[in-house]
Amino acid sequence: MATKLSNQLLEDILAQVRPLIGQGKVADYIPALAEVPADKLGIAVCTVDGETYQAGDADERFSIQSISKVLSLTVALSRYAESDIWARVGKEPSGQPFNSLLQLELEQGKPRNPFINAGALVVCDMLQSRLSAPKQRMLEVVRALSGEPDIVYDARVARSEFEHSDRNAAIAYLMKSFGNFENDVITVLQTYFHYCALRMSCMELARTFVYLANNGHSPALDEPLINERQNRQINAMMVTSGMYDGAGEFAYRVGMPGKSGVGGGIIAVVPHEMSIAVWCPELDASGNSLAGTAALEILAQRIGRSIF
Amino acid sequence: MATKLSNQLLEDILAQVRPLIGQGKVADYIPALAEVPADKLGIAVCTVDGETYQAGDADERFSIQSISKVLSLTVALSRYAESDIWARVGKEPSGQPFNSLLQLELEQGKPRNPFINAGALVVCDMLQSRLSAPKQRMLEVVRALSGEPDIVYDARVARSEFEHSDRNAAIAYLMKSFGNFENDVITVLQTYFHYCALRMSCMELARTFVYLANNGHSPALDEPLINERQNRQINAMMVTSGMYDGAGEFAYRVGMPGKSGVGGGIIAVVPHEMSIAVWCPELDASGNSLAGTAALEILAQRIGRSIF
Amino acid sequence: MATKLSNQLLEDILAQVRPLIGQGKVADYIPALAEVPADKLGIAVCTVDGETYQAGDADERFSIQSISKVLSLTVALSRYAESDIWARVGKEPSGQPFNSLLQLELEQGKPRNPFINAGALVVCDMLQSRLSAPKQRMLEVVRALSGEPDIVYDARVARSEFEHSDRNAAIAYLMKSFGNFENDVITVLQTYFHYCALRMSCMELARTFVYLANNGHSPALDEPLINERQNRQINAMMVTSGMYDGAGEFAYRVGMPGKSGVGGGIIAVVPHEMSIAVWCPELDASGNSLAGTAALEILAQRIGRSIF
Amino acid sequence: MATKLSNQLLEDILAQVRPLIGQGKVADYIPALAEVPADKLGIAVCTVDGETYQAGDADERFSIQSISKVLSLTVALSRYAESDIWARVGKEPSGQPFNSLLQLELEQGKPRNPFINAGALVVCDMLQSRLSAPKQRMLEVVRALSGEPDIVYDARVARSEFEHSDRNAAIAYLMKSFGNFENDVITVLQTYFHYCALRMSCMELARTFVYLANNGHSPALDEPLINERQNRQINAMMVTSGMYDGAGEFAYRVGMPGKSGVGGGIIAVVPHEMSIAVWCPELDASGNSLAGTAALEILAQRIGRSIF
Repeated sequence: MATKLSNQLLEDILAQVRPLIGQGKVADYIPALAEVPADKLGIAVCTVDGETYQAGDADERFSIQSISKVLSLTVALSRYAESDIWARVGKEPSGQPFNSLLQLELEQGKPRNPFINAGALVVCDMLQSRLSAPKQRMLEVVRALSGEPDIVYDARVARSEFEHSDRNAAIAYLMKSFGNFENDVITVLQTYFHYCALRMSCMELARTFVYLANNGHSPALDEPLINERQNRQINAMMVTSGMYDGAGEFAYRVGMPGKSGVGGGIIAVVPHEMSIAVWCPELDASGNSLAGTAALEILAQRIGRSIF
Repeated sequence: MATKLSNQLLEDILAQVRPLIGQGKVADYIPALAEVPADKLGIAVCTVDGETYQAGDADERFSIQSISKVLSLTVALSRYAESDIWARVGKEPSGQPFNSLLQLELEQGKPRNPFINAGALVVCDMLQSRLSAPKQRMLEVVRALSGEPDIVYDARVARSEFEHSDRNAAIAYLMKSFGNFENDVITVLQTYFHYCALRMSCMELARTFVYLANNGHSPALDEPLINERQNRQINAMMVTSGMYDGAGEFAYRVGMPGKSGVGGGIIAVVPHEMSIAVWCPELDASGNSLAGTAALEILAQRIGRSIF
Repeated sequence: MATKLSNQLLEDILAQVRPLIGQGKVADYIPALAEVPADKLGIAVCTVDGETYQAGDADERFSIQSISKVLSLTVALSRYAESDIWARVGKEPSGQPFNSLLQLELEQGKPRNPFINAGALVVCDMLQSRLSAPKQRMLEVVRALSGEPDIVYDARVARSEFEHSDRNAAIAYLMKSFGNFENDVITVLQTYFHYCALRMSCMELARTFVYLANNGHSPALDEPLINERQNRQINAMMVTSGMYDGAGEFAYRVGMPGKSGVGGGIIAVVPHEMSIAVWCPELDASGNSLAGTAALEILAQRIGRSIF
Repeated sequence: MATKLSNQLLEDILAQVRPLIGQGKVADYIPALAEVPADKLGIAVCTVDGETYQAGDADERFSIQSISKVLSLTVALSRYAESDIWARVGKEPSGQPFNSLLQLELEQGKPRNPFINAGALVVCDMLQSRLSAPKQRMLEVVRALSGEPDIVYDARVARSEFEHSDRNAAIAYLMKSFGNFENDVITVLQTYFHYCALRMSCMELARTFVYLANNGHSPALDEPLINERQNRQINAMMVTSGMYDGAGEFAYRVGMPGKSGVGGGIIAVVPHEMSIAVWCPELDASGNSLAGTAALEILAQRIGRSIF
């Protein structure tokens, strides 16, 4: 009944969703993102056994944007006691737009979860406090996980984000006013935007995130990044909060933990089996890759995998 | 590594969580609920193969309260086109208390999902429009699913709920003002409170909900209640929205789709394997059974089951 | 410098604002209001010395709608200790639309002031508790104050309002859920809508409200309706909260205490001197009579009267 | 009936309200304010004819804080077309705490009025754009209006405010994200906090603000600061929005346009007659001087002046 994974299967799926291109909208709040060709489409899979599959523009790098929020959290879990993290950021869905201040004000500066901007900024603030060179450290992490030593930040994107960072600055200052932000706002924003400006391909993303399908253990590392329980917890939070205000719809249609970025990338996880990365720049109304979500939906059906 | 299911395992788990009794708070907004002994504790499991396990007060009936919201939605899916349902109620987590009007007003009377009060009231309104005797029909459904022909409504609880129904009346009238409520408010509230006032035991609940672990097919019925896809969708919504404003925490700790009621019951699902019902009246700050959640958390660990 | 009051002055002002007709929008949420001709335009003045002036359709009756909220409060002040009233309704501007539930929920069912719907409903609820026949009593009050024994409710308007009362019912039930509503919701709504459905002319309104310019003393009555201090307080609340969410703009432009209704009427007060009533059915974006506000603005300038 | 103004009358009033000291709370969010003795109490009156009256600590300087918002607006009115100002800030009461971001976010970064922090920050931003030395310019203005060439900023207070400015920074950045803030946030905050840190006495404040009782014309200047209409408009806005979330209560009790500061000062206006300044550091729950408000209430009664 369920089809076996293969490059051909991935090709078929891309062919099926390609007609959706034109129905979404490329993120245009910064020029560097707006100019990415709308017809890019790629997918890559990495299994826990190390097998990889790919189709389309799976080797072309793009701006991973909010997908980096999962990486920040993962690094934070290795540097902080869990209770220290969850004292400063919650684990619940926000039910609000990703960059809303309303809830943050009502809830005394404690963000709902680490995957909305406010939460990710708190996590970056924590990394800033503990890491001597947080930007360099993140590069080391993704280079090690992906096996690609030449992954770099897109300095132009980071600069452009920073020039449009007023709302994120407002969020950070609001948390600071509630005592939930330790470092200089500008410095943390710089780190945050660099993380968002990581350029990685679908294949690199699939390789990087396979630890979330493998009890927290990346095949590229000797030691687990996080423990089994933490792995399950990240996956749980990706389901409830990983897809902006479209988490319910994504769970409903795709049935996998996932995290999207406005660059059009999505990383998804089949627990104990594989990680999947898709990329197609046009976004739906919730800010998630339109064709990318459709590709994951079809893939889930074809291989018969849904956590539900 | 993972322990096999057995009555003994369930007994062990109950013994482990029983000390938590005294740390929560029995729902007291209506007298009929407040007077339930706080030390009741039961658990029951029903596998897709029809095996059952139980421990504690698993055969004692209690008020299922909001667990009934899953049943209403299931019945609605059998009577309406999906698009008709989702035009009137969303699929996203609310990020708000279960009985909030704030979001409902900002979002023009369309509730976020069918598991908050507003959403369940819309679903009841839809049933009222299509079923000739919605209260009788629900009894038939649960009697058939559970195999217990003597399940009834607790008339005293239903009456008591109705006498404290001002906020739910406000919710219903607000939706009516936006054109998202068809029937007489009082009539629908009566139906809604009767559904909440169903008295069922853990074992009956486990048997009733095993269809959610079995592609929508209850062993008690010839025909599937809902199709596979709808089954996955309900499970997905239970994860993102089934536990009031503690959905993230529950997903994080337990890792199963679940739906709780203020009577202290929780129904949880291991897709393709089993349904689990627990009951312990004291609630945590989010309104979910405190010891019940703990029991599910331990069970998930012991049998090595988490969807994440 | 300041022009003396005269019928001619009022005629001139109406001529000046008549061209504005066509730029506003007649209230159309109930048919009975929607069918009022948009070109009605009237003004009447009543001084504390009993002199009256008028122009245009000043003798034609219309639905006074929310202007009645000032009368309800006045009657309540004669039946309750002030502290009992202000324990249940505030005195602050709401900063929200007149029929919002959001603030009411955040503030535990206590409305901001008696001139928004929630506040007026609480006042009606209080009258219901103390008056044996609240509808008849209000008729007696306005007949006595205006000197017109044939003032009646427009039963068709009252019925039509009631048929569109879902949002007001939601407001009342929400307050009831917080313990701030004593009587049957439907009964109080009936009273409330009857008060709104009073039909009075500009001249009758000017005569009725001259007590607000005369230390609470109506020339038509032997005893003061309210005392001096209460008079000042009502005037103060009319300035901060009498014009829906256009109170600031009205204070800014007209500089008088005022209360408007969606029927297109406005009552305004020059303390110690006169009451003024205008009527023109088309409303501005804030729900206040567009030409009526303009007429009051010009009148204030011409006679050199502003409280500021 | 009404008592004539005299120093003795003012002494009597202070004696009457002095027992209230101890019932309020001195602002303590910055140390420099917290250490002001709580028993300071002063009042000064300046009539449009140039007569002055005073009692208590009327010559002692204190931090005028938000009273400066009226000065910023006045200066802005002399440098900008009115329409340019009201395009960026509204005229309506906010119904929210003075430093709320919630409404600002819902309303796209346009503050409700110039007397809440957000609105005053926009006004400062406008001054920053047009004045070559906005801090020096404001000193010149208050020195000229008060006739006291030695008025200065309290550098320690300004610095201390700046060190606790996170929430105001959040507000400014949020407006910037909506395009309603032109200059560097830090620079404007510096200007804003200096204005708040003006040290002036009651007598200096009364002399400074008498233009609001005199058609916009200060006796100290040859030219009017603002025109008559603008004067009325500022007074109107002070009534609806000058007293944080206690504007309704202040209008209700005192019946004068007023603007308070957390330093415990209040400036009030009897149009066409006089300006009044009071100072007593302890604040009520709304952030207004507790004894100061009481003094104004009694003064209004004694001299028989209320705009209502």
